[in-house]
Amino acid sequence: MVKVSILGATGVIGKNVAFTLARADTVDEIVLFSRPQSVDKAKGETFDMYDALAAEDIDCRLTPSCNYEDINDSDIVLITAGTPRQEGMTRMDLAIPNAEIVRNYAEKIAIHAPDSIILIATNPVDVMTTIALEASGFDKTKVIGIGNHLDSLRLKAYFANQININSSEVHTRVVGEHGDHMVPLLSSTTIGGIPLKYFIQSVDMDVPRLIKRLRKAGNTIISKKGATEYGPSYAISNLISTIITDSHKILTVTTYLNGEIAGVSGVSLGVPVVLSKKGIAMIVPIHMNDYEQKKFKDAAEIVREATEEVKNSFNYH
Amino acid sequence: MVKVSILGATGVIGKNVAFTLARADTVDEIVLFSRPQSVDKAKGETFDMYDALAAEDIDCRLTPSCNYEDINDSDIVLITAGTPRQEGMTRMDLAIPNAEIVRNYAEKIAIHAPDSIILIATNPVDVMTTIALEASGFDKTKVIGIGNHLDSLRLKAYFANQININSSEVHTRVVGEHGDHMVPLLSSTTIGGIPLKYFIQSVDMDVPRLIKRLRKAGNTIISKKGATEYGPSYAISNLISTIITDSHKILTVTTYLNGEIAGVSGVSLGVPVVLSKKGIAMIVPIHMNDYEQKKFKDAAEIVREATEEVKNSFNYH
Amino acid sequence: MVKVSILGATGVIGKNVAFTLARADTVDEIVLFSRPQSVDKAKGETFDMYDALAAEDIDCRLTPSCNYEDINDSDIVLITAGTPRQEGMTRMDLAIPNAEIVRNYAEKIAIHAPDSIILIATNPVDVMTTIALEASGFDKTKVIGIGNHLDSLRLKAYFANQININSSEVHTRVVGEHGDHMVPLLSSTTIGGIPLKYFIQSVDMDVPRLIKRLRKAGNTIISKKGATEYGPSYAISNLISTIITDSHKILTVTTYLNGEIAGVSGVSLGVPVVLSKKGIAMIVPIHMNDYEQKKFKDAAEIVREATEEVKNSFNYH
Amino acid sequence: MVKVSILGATGVIGKNVAFTLARADTVDEIVLFSRPQSVDKAKGETFDMYDALAAEDIDCRLTPSCNYEDINDSDIVLITAGTPRQEGMTRMDLAIPNAEIVRNYAEKIAIHAPDSIILIATNPVDVMTTIALEASGFDKTKVIGIGNHLDSLRLKAYFANQININSSEVHTRVVGEHGDHMVPLLSSTTIGGIPLKYFIQSVDMDVPRLIKRLRKAGNTIISKKGATEYGPSYAISNLISTIITDSHKILTVTTYLNGEIAGVSGVSLGVPVVLSKKGIAMIVPIHMNDYEQKKFKDAAEIVREATEEVKNSFNYH
Repeated sequence: MVKVSILGATGVIGKNVAFTLARADTVDEIVLFSRPQSVDKAKGETFDMYDALAAEDIDCRLTPSCNYEDINDSDIVLITAGTPRQEGMTRMDLAIPNAEIVRNYAEKIAIHAPDSIILIATNPVDVMTTIALEASGFDKTKVIGIGNHLDSLRLKAYFANQININSSEVHTRVVGEHGDHMVPLLSSTTIGGIPLKYFIQSVDMDVPRLIKRLRKAGNTIISKKGATEYGPSYAISNLISTIITDSHKILTVTTYLNGEIAGVSGVSLGVPVVLSKKGIAMIVPIHMNDYEQKKFKDAAEIVREATEEVKNSFNYH
Repeated sequence: MVKVSILGATGVIGKNVAFTLARADTVDEIVLFSRPQSVDKAKGETFDMYDALAAEDIDCRLTPSCNYEDINDSDIVLITAGTPRQEGMTRMDLAIPNAEIVRNYAEKIAIHAPDSIILIATNPVDVMTTIALEASGFDKTKVIGIGNHLDSLRLKAYFANQININSSEVHTRVVGEHGDHMVPLLSSTTIGGIPLKYFIQSVDMDVPRLIKRLRKAGNTIISKKGATEYGPSYAISNLISTIITDSHKILTVTTYLNGEIAGVSGVSLGVPVVLSKKGIAMIVPIHMNDYEQKKFKDAAEIVREATEEVKNSFNYH
Repeated sequence: MVKVSILGATGVIGKNVAFTLARADTVDEIVLFSRPQSVDKAKGETFDMYDALAAEDIDCRLTPSCNYEDINDSDIVLITAGTPRQEGMTRMDLAIPNAEIVRNYAEKIAIHAPDSIILIATNPVDVMTTIALEASGFDKTKVIGIGNHLDSLRLKAYFANQININSSEVHTRVVGEHGDHMVPLLSSTTIGGIPLKYFIQSVDMDVPRLIKRLRKAGNTIISKKGATEYGPSYAISNLISTIITDSHKILTVTTYLNGEIAGVSGVSLGVPVVLSKKGIAMIVPIHMNDYEQKKFKDAAEIVREATEEVKNSFNYH
Repeated sequence: MVKVSILGATGVIGKNVAFTLARADTVDEIVLFSRPQSVDKAKGETFDMYDALAAEDIDCRLTPSCNYEDINDSDIVLITAGTPRQEGMTRMDLAIPNAEIVRNYAEKIAIHAPDSIILIATNPVDVMTTIALEASGFDKTKVIGIGNHLDSLRLKAYFANQININSSEVHTRVVGEHGDHMVPLLSSTTIGGIPLKYFIQSVDMDVPRLIKRLRKAGNTIISKKGATEYGPSYAISNLISTIITDSHKILTVTTYLNGEIAGVSGVSLGVPVVLSKKGIAMIVPIHMNDYEQKKFKDAAEIVREATEEVKNSFNYH
């Protein structure tokens, strides 16, 4: 019995994650949790999803609910709730109101699903990961932000297209903040295990232009269609499936650091980790060059300050 | 090279069909066609979808466009455009404005993709199928309405759940109008090839209640979440995949009848057909009981009148 | 943890079933059980299979063994051991020596895997099913012969090819003896739920020729390549997967009858059943015409006599 | 229309490749080519395979033949014919008789399938690749030996198991000769793009023992079960699928070198390449350390001498 609960399930990300997971048929029950005023909408979502699953003999139970008891015994609880990012907004603009939501949910999860893994999609995700970690009191291997996973998938696709190679051969990582201070790890990007630099010699590729495009990718979509929808939903579903199937793949997610990478400590940042059904099985021993390391430490300071600011705001309530 | 064009691609059905097809990886190009004022939105959709496909090595080209030349050489053109059905509205309330849209598109398809198969999702779909057939001048095997396919999938799922059997064993059909005058064919419903009636004896099942639930299924979802989304999108994608892969499955869709079933002629209705990559390869020789046949003929008269009314409205412009 | 044990795993059927199951990745452990003198060969098979699985991240443990303790806690135990059928031999020629093997294995299974489901592939399979049932003392829903499943798959493929229809639409069954006295159930053969007879009118099909080809199918292969290999291995793997995934499909297998079909009692014959992870969930209520019913009863008498003869042979030892 | 011809299709490798490809459903026709005296056996194989495919709606034509015209228009021709390696035999012991067979087939392929890609599984494969290249007169990107692909898959699996990581994260290559002089490229082995050496620090792993096991893997299986069967068959099918689907993956195969790697020229050896539907799209720019480079050059000299010896033998006939 694998059970996943989605907090904020009537939002565009929440419902698309639920549907993608249901179709993948690796989960036995998905709780679509929402505020009481939205639970009828959550019910409508489940009916609509059952219709789409009708022809596929998928035996996944979809439970609409606004009742915390229904998340009991979840293996994974995903927090997607929060004010959505709008065009022009930085992720930091969302921090204080969203932190209240995440803190509240994390406390409830600690009560009702104390053995679960918490995933956080609410932005700014690096800050929210620390908030959820502290509010839940969970071990740090069990509290995971959807940090740079989508950024990393995007960069992987860019390189695969440029070199005309199967994307499974490309290993590249975007680490640091999930935002303006993301750090693409070019120095440890490999193609089939061979360093990117050996390939670049034989391929005409404008790496700085790719990185620029990467940084703007989310905002470009928001400016055109009003929100990101399929990209983040799929990235999150993919991450959940990786955990559930205990597949020991390496994905780049936000985790609280205790000096494992570049000596950074006391802050949550995106780094590559091995994921198992127990959460983070291992932080991958990446080696950055001097430039990357500097940028990573800069990102750490920015996220640390934002986290402090958010935590201070709690004291005034 | 398999190419599918979606007219009305920024609507909730259009974009979800595009994404489902892209993920299934059986199509080489999908044109997301929209009105000029929405083409930037269509562009945003393609960027968002590419993000979701990034990790999967799917090589499907997504082309946002408002230019009819871009639908040239399509294998399939799907018309989803039209005013969406709202709570309380019958499908007939939408007929006249939608018929104008469908007629215009069908004429354009005849010019730009004269060898394509036209699929119609715009409601009332039975009426629209005749409109598109006449406006395009296509052979009747090439103009197909998404008639009772979703209704049939729903009923199949209901029986599979009640009997606790794999849904691949259930063959059941809802024919006639896609709307209040749908006709569930209980007399030729089989489980693993065995008539339903032999199973009902050993299973406690309230068939009338299931049929009632089936009739209300769409409206229930609309009342709760404002629109149907996943169900119809998946049913349409499934139908397109069946055609593309030339898989010769039997699905229940709307086709113009020339006396093949119950002697009904000169109107488009939902009946089971064998689908190939050439369109409708064969209308399946179903045999209805007297009650079903009467209801099927009633549906024919109702759709026939609505179709006439719509066609008359064209003359006043 | 799903565990399958294969008794006779170094034979051509045993090893191909093991490999097909391993690749399907639905089983956690497969025990390749053989006589002590063949256990090194069984070890070689597992090394060879691991090589083939290397690139696929399949996490299935393969255990070569000649030790009955290793089959403890199996969910399914497959008996493939026995003298292989050779050209010209009837299945009945194999009965007495094979019955000794099956009886011995069934007694061991009762001791070491008392909660398992026993599958029997050893011929004559209808006789062996009763032998295994009595020797194990298991409930009759837990002792299943690979009776007419392959015969039924063959006939399904023949019809699908002749009508040019997706084989998932064809429901047909071969019941009775797995051998010369098999009974193809033409009267309840359906295409998409519609009786075959309505299709035959519009398709030129020589049904008697198809049935003749069906009866000879196994012997034709044996005369050409010396043994059947892929066909039975795949049919068995497919049956095991259906049980493991609890998919409630209807397959035609050998089961001990207590009057459920045509009043036949006290003998094991091939009939369609619903399979679940508990074994036979339900015998499907087929209705035969007079001719089919007579042939089915004839098969019952022939298998009954053979079973008696075999059981009498035990008393002389 | 994708067509693959298998020369030597009644051998254990040939028939298992045919069956694996047929089940994967990416090929439209497979020609099972054999000597005239074996063509009835080839016919039996196809009947047996059709039985196994019956339930899966796979539409792959299987053509048994001993007629070279039947390989016309093949996309890929696989040569598996040759004396099988027996326990204790080195691959070189097989060279001269097998070279005659390969030369003859390559000449026939040049006549009947001049646009195909030739794959060679006959041992010693590095020698045979040069023989086939010269006898066919094909471009060197079109003549590919199944060199170290299976060796590389094995090593990948060993590392994945030791580190407990998804095997898709492991990039490792065995290059040089497919035989005693294989060269595992430890210096460019990476896990998720991160050099192996950083992982070894945190994992207890006996690399020399793994390499020793790798070198003996084939012989161990031959000593136990008499032949390798599933491992090579799957590796070959996997390679064919990679080519057919134009997937631009990097596999390690035998190709004729013109100085691309370590300055080695005029001999065929195993190196990593990008595979497309046109054959070898690119030799991957690997960088070996001094030790690996020396071993690679040693392998080159050994294969070069063997190739000369074989070619000289042709002159005596």
